[in-house]
Amino acid sequence: MSRGLGAEQMAFGANYTPRHGWFHSWLELDPSSVAADFAALKALGLDHVRIFPLWPLLQPNRTHLVARSLQDVRTVAQLAGDAGLDVHVDVLQGHLSSFDFLPSWVETWHRTNFFTDPKAIAAAAELISALTEVLADLPQVRGLSLGNEIGQFAAARHPEQRAITPAQARAWTSGLLEHAARVWPDGRHTHSYDDELWFVDEHPFTPDLATQLSPTTTVHSWVFTGATTRLGNDHPDLARFGRYLVELAQAWSPDPTRPVWVQEIGAPTPSVSADQAPDYARRTLVELVGSPAVEAVTWWCSHDVSRSLADFPELEYSLGLIDEHSRVKPIGRAMAELIDDVRSGVVGRESATGRRALVIPPLEHELRSLTAPHGPVFLEWLALGGDPAPALLPVTQATGPDLLEARGITTLIDPLNLQTSESNPLLLKR
Amino acid sequence: MSRGLGAEQMAFGANYTPRHGWFHSWLELDPSSVAADFAALKALGLDHVRIFPLWPLLQPNRTHLVARSLQDVRTVAQLAGDAGLDVHVDVLQGHLSSFDFLPSWVETWHRTNFFTDPKAIAAAAELISALTEVLADLPQVRGLSLGNEIGQFAAARHPEQRAITPAQARAWTSGLLEHAARVWPDGRHTHSYDDELWFVDEHPFTPDLATQLSPTTTVHSWVFTGATTRLGNDHPDLARFGRYLVELAQAWSPDPTRPVWVQEIGAPTPSVSADQAPDYARRTLVELVGSPAVEAVTWWCSHDVSRSLADFPELEYSLGLIDEHSRVKPIGRAMAELIDDVRSGVVGRESATGRRALVIPPLEHELRSLTAPHGPVFLEWLALGGDPAPALLPVTQATGPDLLEARGITTLIDPLNLQTSESNPLLLKR
Repeated sequence: MSRGLGAEQMAFGANYTPRHGWFHSWLELDPSSVAADFAALKALGLDHVRIFPLWPLLQPNRTHLVARSLQDVRTVAQLAGDAGLDVHVDVLQGHLSSFDFLPSWVETWHRTNFFTDPKAIAAAAELISALTEVLADLPQVRGLSLGNEIGQFAAARHPEQRAITPAQARAWTSGLLEHAARVWPDGRHTHSYDDELWFVDEHPFTPDLATQLSPTTTVHSWVFTGATTRLGNDHPDLARFGRYLVELAQAWSPDPTRPVWVQEIGAPTPSVSADQAPDYARRTLVELVGSPAVEAVTWWCSHDVSRSLADFPELEYSLGLIDEHSRVKPIGRAMAELIDDVRSGVVGRESATGRRALVIPPLEHELRSLTAPHGPVFLEWLALGGDPAPALLPVTQATGPDLLEARGITTLIDPLNLQTSESNPLLLKR
Repeated sequence: MSRGLGAEQMAFGANYTPRHGWFHSWLELDPSSVAADFAALKALGLDHVRIFPLWPLLQPNRTHLVARSLQDVRTVAQLAGDAGLDVHVDVLQGHLSSFDFLPSWVETWHRTNFFTDPKAIAAAAELISALTEVLADLPQVRGLSLGNEIGQFAAARHPEQRAITPAQARAWTSGLLEHAARVWPDGRHTHSYDDELWFVDEHPFTPDLATQLSPTTTVHSWVFTGATTRLGNDHPDLARFGRYLVELAQAWSPDPTRPVWVQEIGAPTPSVSADQAPDYARRTLVELVGSPAVEAVTWWCSHDVSRSLADFPELEYSLGLIDEHSRVKPIGRAMAELIDDVRSGVVGRESATGRRALVIPPLEHELRSLTAPHGPVFLEWLALGGDPAPALLPVTQATGPDLLEARGITTLIDPLNLQTSESNPLLLKR
């Protein structure tokens, strides 16, 4: 691994879901409550948090930024820093746990495709600049993320889809990332995607964006998007899905040393039952730590959503490491123990050399579904077992010795017979 | 007029549009700025304001009310009271000046028809109860209004229509008004409608609701909805459109003594050019004061929308009595002078007896468009002139002497020949 990152240097964090009032707490920020939440996360051994202001509260009009809301973001970031946590700040929310938060100036009578509307893009840049202004001098704030899985607003399944082309998705992402780099050159700015980027053939946000823009590839891993359907609830291999996504992200990456940040991963019921969750979490994390590419894992989420809040999908109420009464849950203890084990060397990286690789169909945007949980690749990869987990190698790269060496791959496994059959039906899927 | 309200007892107010930050100022309430705004309105001779909290800030989750947001509403109401202004508080915004404000729990993935969903209706009742809790002890807070023109979400023209039947519209309105009366029996609680209620044949919110529920009929009068198209910009008769709506509301009312609150009326460009606005405002107000039924007029709006805020329809920037730099505009001075003239008896009521009435087609929901600005009734009514303005009398009531007497009508005018022709095409429109 050219980055030379040892497992003990890995970052472990949580996506911060405020215990009191969830993200609606931005409407009545209680610094002492937030400070207590952060202290509890630090006590688990975590080193960072992602925080999520809500777009309509920051920028309720296209040309109006709310100073108090910006100051509240700074306050929360400071509190995290005071607790010894690094902070990553998401810009455009956008979407959180099934709820969409869009300002009125992009909705109904003012509906606009904010991915392509030049005025909306300029406004997003203004918001990035404003957040930079209130955050960049805080040493523990590491950077911005453009928006939490905001690409789903462009997905066909969204009830108010903003349809765009891949070129438009690239222009939006690269333009705003470049703007962030310009106004905040010391920040480490990222963008995030749900797994439709990797799995849905026609999704306008593509793996190219994930693996070529920003300094790290972000992965959001949720077993309920397909893995559970394929494997069944509480299947032991569900704990390997996150690692599978990491390997897939690496396979798409033109740079074999590119890091991966597993920015969201959790233990959702009923895919993972409550009593299985601690074991699932540990095995998931061991798999992720094993990858020489993974630089950070950020659990979703810090605190259970309070049962006093209505209308969340059932699974969202129990994703926390800590419950709504501030008690560390078994899964929180499991993560704390794993972090201890990593720091003390009990759990470590797999070797970055001498790796096995599963030969897979060419990685093309129009063939993404071949690598989805319902496709042939996932099960073949699982069948190879872990320890160490195999890489994924597109058949189109299987003959390049330099590339194999760069990826540390010494053994090719080709159960789909992709190398020997030019007319393999998998290659003709479309 | 059985209520015995003299013109000098009429109420004059403004719909309060905060000078700093418009309604987004709820996100960073500045009491001193609000106090200055109210003092300026009081100095014009106004006696009341309507205030408009935003629904998503009060109730961002179906079962979560934000204490600080509720407290902010109380603070603003107190500041208005301190300035000597009565206060009416709108509950569900909903919609303001082309922008929709809906909480995420009724939108996209959680989309619900909040007019019919029992959980959403229960949540609206909870919000009414919560506002009652923080407001009812303030002596100058007069009551609640369910929501500002919220019925437009049920209109076919709305891009995210919540389609409902008239029975559902009635159930929603009466249920919430009854709830408000139960929890706040001393309050005077109303509901409001744009003029589609009077003019659009298929609109599920009907004149029955406006004229039978709550203690007063509310009228929102905007010449740009059709009167300008019919008459032309700056036509002198545009100043009579508000009065026409009052007469139409009276014609629909089963109670001839029912009061009317002209809750929104303004001077929008280009229908009314800036240099004509003071004269338009005075003539509009003289017409409204003339009606023995009108108990209150609330101008839209108090303060111009700042040019620093984007995307408002052009007309919305210049509707204030006071400009964005706190200067009273000519239209503000015109309203102040008119109020002086009413208080001193220079301008007064027309007689409630000996009135002329224009005979009009039957008032049926399916025939509402006959009374719209593009229909035959409006021009005939205008042609009869004012001073005093004629009443509107459905032909179906033209033979009832008791009713004529109750309405103070002594002269019937029938230019459409409705009384003499049973096959009049106007009656067969549909």
